[in-house]
Amino acid sequence: MNPITGTQLRLYNRLDSLFATWAREWNAQEYRVPPFISVSELKKIDYFSSFPHLITFPATLRSESLQEFTQINQDEQKEIQITALNPIHEILTPAACYHFYILLQGSNLQQPLYLTTCANCFRNEKEYLPLQRQWSFHMREIVCIGSMEEVQSFLKNMRQKLEAYFASISLPVTWAEATDPFFNASSNPKFLSQVLDPVKTEMLYENQLAIGSINFHRNFFGESFHIQTNGNAAFSGCVAFGMERWMFAYLTTFGKDENSWPGI
Amino acid sequence: MNPITGTQLRLYNRLDSLFATWAREWNAQEYRVPPFISVSELKKIDYFSSFPHLITFPATLRSESLQEFTQINQDEQKEIQITALNPIHEILTPAACYHFYILLQGSNLQQPLYLTTCANCFRNEKEYLPLQRQWSFHMREIVCIGSMEEVQSFLKNMRQKLEAYFASISLPVTWAEATDPFFNASSNPKFLSQVLDPVKTEMLYENQLAIGSINFHRNFFGESFHIQTNGNAAFSGCVAFGMERWMFAYLTTFGKDENSWPGI
Repeated sequence: MNPITGTQLRLYNRLDSLFATWAREWNAQEYRVPPFISVSELKKIDYFSSFPHLITFPATLRSESLQEFTQINQDEQKEIQITALNPIHEILTPAACYHFYILLQGSNLQQPLYLTTCANCFRNEKEYLPLQRQWSFHMREIVCIGSMEEVQSFLKNMRQKLEAYFASISLPVTWAEATDPFFNASSNPKFLSQVLDPVKTEMLYENQLAIGSINFHRNFFGESFHIQTNGNAAFSGCVAFGMERWMFAYLTTFGKDENSWPGI
Repeated sequence: MNPITGTQLRLYNRLDSLFATWAREWNAQEYRVPPFISVSELKKIDYFSSFPHLITFPATLRSESLQEFTQINQDEQKEIQITALNPIHEILTPAACYHFYILLQGSNLQQPLYLTTCANCFRNEKEYLPLQRQWSFHMREIVCIGSMEEVQSFLKNMRQKLEAYFASISLPVTWAEATDPFFNASSNPKFLSQVLDPVKTEMLYENQLAIGSINFHRNFFGESFHIQTNGNAAFSGCVAFGMERWMFAYLTTFGKDENSWPGI
């Protein structure tokens, strides 16, 4: 991850403007979400047993261990060694839309809600590749929370919009059912449920790089965070765009000349 | 730290547009910087002995310790317990402009450079207060790197611009010399140097909350990162704006009605 500027920054901004335009078509409310998310909230969706391998913890040194820390790290040639850490109450945001279910928990919706944000997300991976697979990356999401019909209608409409968009600019994107990357997947009932009844459809650039996804959460977040609509646990779904991966797809397909970027 | 939307988000955006306008008056190049910054680079400025108490480390679990992690964290009522961590090679960005000195290291400037970014920064503190003192916050910086005269001229011009701005909108801001919050300050030669020859001037809202600062680094970063101008270590300086603290100052002084916000 390096700073970006010039052409790359303009590509990032033009892509995000496109996604924001689509969000406005649903009158989606724009949010800025923080980089941290609460451990106690994520426990409600069993995050720590499902995705421990992806987590980045924001760790700080106990004040009693600062003196020791400075002493053992005097050698500039060696790796930094951490000393005793403060208790962990947050992790770095793994997905943009979690913030919304936490924000809305306990509420009773009178009509479907549409929300959007572009969030800095963090996923620990075995390998990284600039733009394609980063520890820190940005995810624009458009989220619908409401009845099953409202959510399914939103996702269907977005799928059609995206298919038309990819066709109009001749971006080689195919669609594929996928599952979330569960830890110990084969023994996790949530993973098995996803295999039996797919809820995630990825937009695969050149048949391999997922530049975005359409996700139907059923009423999982509505139940976990007690969000209701007409007396029932609310359904939810989201369309997620990986900003850096879209940049990669545009730069690879259309080149670095910003006058040659179609559709944005 | 909660998600922000509506009026608060518009205030954030309007303030940042103001700062970006000032940056453009210097033709400052706009950057987006990553949230992580390299340990090995920060060692070059003795960061780990000077500010260990402020650091947030992005910590991830060793793959061998994942099974143990899920086992010891099954009790939902208890705090999360971390297990063995991977080696630390990055920390979360403590100040926006560090990215620029790293980016430019080893270069020989033919003319003064002006750069700007609005970065998510992280500082561990004993206490937090929304908008006023946050673990994660945003800092807009305008940076000048060049000769001593060029940097001093930039800082002097910005000081005059800011004084005129605060007067024009009647925002109660005073100026005060300050020092960086060194660990073990009294035994750190860098702190003593700052006391003898102040290099940091803060913009104090209501005589107490630093909403920004003007910093003259002398040739400290030029020497540390081998950035030269005309054969000498480059000088640098920056003007930094704490986005959330400016929001606090505006909301406290001018209220929540966005039509009553002057100057933006």
